[in-house]
Amino acid sequence: MKTGEDRLVRKITQALAFRGHSGLALGVGDDAALLQPRPGRQLVLSCDWFLEGSHFLRDKHPPDSIGWKCLARAVSDVAAMGGEPRCFLLSLALPETHTGKWLGGFLRGLARAERRFQCHLAGGDTTRNHKILINVTVIGDVPTGRAVLRSGAKPRDLIFVSGRLGEAELGLRSLRSERPSGHENRTRWIKKHLYPEPRLALGRWLAEKRLATAMMDLSDGLSTDLSRLCAASRVGARIAIDKIPKVALPKEKGRTLLGLTELALHGGDDYELLFTVRPKQADAVPSSFQGLALGCIGEITRERQLMLAGPEGLEQKLPAHGWDPF
Amino acid sequence: MKTGEDRLVRKITQALAFRGHSGLALGVGDDAALLQPRPGRQLVLSCDWFLEGSHFLRDKHPPDSIGWKCLARAVSDVAAMGGEPRCFLLSLALPETHTGKWLGGFLRGLARAERRFQCHLAGGDTTRNHKILINVTVIGDVPTGRAVLRSGAKPRDLIFVSGRLGEAELGLRSLRSERPSGHENRTRWIKKHLYPEPRLALGRWLAEKRLATAMMDLSDGLSTDLSRLCAASRVGARIAIDKIPKVALPKEKGRTLLGLTELALHGGDDYELLFTVRPKQADAVPSSFQGLALGCIGEITRERQLMLAGPEGLEQKLPAHGWDPF
Repeated sequence: MKTGEDRLVRKITQALAFRGHSGLALGVGDDAALLQPRPGRQLVLSCDWFLEGSHFLRDKHPPDSIGWKCLARAVSDVAAMGGEPRCFLLSLALPETHTGKWLGGFLRGLARAERRFQCHLAGGDTTRNHKILINVTVIGDVPTGRAVLRSGAKPRDLIFVSGRLGEAELGLRSLRSERPSGHENRTRWIKKHLYPEPRLALGRWLAEKRLATAMMDLSDGLSTDLSRLCAASRVGARIAIDKIPKVALPKEKGRTLLGLTELALHGGDDYELLFTVRPKQADAVPSSFQGLALGCIGEITRERQLMLAGPEGLEQKLPAHGWDPF
Repeated sequence: MKTGEDRLVRKITQALAFRGHSGLALGVGDDAALLQPRPGRQLVLSCDWFLEGSHFLRDKHPPDSIGWKCLARAVSDVAAMGGEPRCFLLSLALPETHTGKWLGGFLRGLARAERRFQCHLAGGDTTRNHKILINVTVIGDVPTGRAVLRSGAKPRDLIFVSGRLGEAELGLRSLRSERPSGHENRTRWIKKHLYPEPRLALGRWLAEKRLATAMMDLSDGLSTDLSRLCAASRVGARIAIDKIPKVALPKEKGRTLLGLTELALHGGDDYELLFTVRPKQADAVPSSFQGLALGCIGEITRERQLMLAGPEGLEQKLPAHGWDPF
């Protein structure tokens, strides 16, 4: 009596389901999933498209990286609120040709992400399509009142980012390039592009310590995302070129500082955290957190525009040149 | 500083956002939405694809029906658990040509559904695509322990359905047909296909009264969905052809009983409820609930197969011939 869709669902649940975890009273296999909320906490809800052609390429991206990344991206939104992921819903549309080996690889990457982020499959929807379409909804939670929003930044707050910006974009370029650069860090950049690590521990720590006044994850590039944080907080920002943590490249590679700055300002997919801290609390932010570098790149201003200060102190307006599908 | 995506999000939130409702502490415009869970209740989580070409046709389906139906379908899964919808996440991928008039119509239908179901926009994701892609996640809740699952049916339980089955399928056929039939009920069938009504009040009532032992919504057709309910409950079923509430058609229209039975057995998209009731509680099920007919169509059996009894008592196996994308 099994239909094709039922067989596909069975394949997915066999690869992923972790029964009895996370307060999931009921997972895949009913009309809906049931989740027991935890007392004293608010739910954190987020969903993300991950579409062939727009977000990944069928012939360039290994299926296990697509499985990892579709969950990592959605979990990153929970990290950016200071929350903890609990479960996810997977909507998957596949060509019939991709329900075998490709699906196996995809599910291996997704299962690895599920374990790493402690975020378990609760349900979803499957259908057939000539292109691979993925949508992931993550349900997380955060102690009530402790979520860090985009809207809390105040003038004079200092602006911080985690990690180095532009690495994932460089990874994507390396992946697309027909002539591999052979650079020793190439694997590292490609890995950051294919298997991003949402900054869950950092986000929770900043929320628990009440250090961050505003926070978001960097998915579309610093210039675009910082302008969104500033718009939500009704403020502006001034950041300094030489303070932005850029990709580390030996000079003899012929890269200009400008090229690396462009990458760091406008490159997407880094999934690092961007957050603001009151000046008197800035000393409480360490230079690294669990091995991840944290750097101050500028400050929030009352004047509602984004300014970029060059090494000689010259300032220019910073346009939002990050990723925009429209 | 606004990007194209930001403008699209603004359009959506202006059409939909109902601030301060539903315990939504934070809606659209941050990395994730925040929802306050209600004490004594479990969360009900469900998501649904709604894709151009598979689930609707750009040139046949009015945009406001696509807006209505994408939410109605997902809400129907919450109804099928006996739950109450609280909020939804909208993932929308559109061609640039559809961000004007088409989007306006879509949002009008969606806003109407949002008010009707008291299920409010909490967040989502937008991107560009050459085809229209929609995914809706609904977050609802249900008193803890009261959700009605697919897996609770026991042998000898009676099987009920709400409404008349096959009407939505007939509506789809009327909509696709180049030669309108002119039948007086044509508008009614098309309306049922375009603007389905999830059976929220019935589902909640059955759960509250503890009348239903198992329940699901009929989205893929009775033959397919009943086989799923039986598989989840590890039972079989025997249903009677002449008890199935079929489309009402005058005989002179030349329709055979067989044609109407096929429609009722295998036609999808009705979003009626299928539920089972212990024999001794069957009398507590009224013949109609708030104007919606409820009919007993057969009973659950220990033997794990689906049998269809004809008018002369002859029995045949019922194959699952409902909608299956694969």
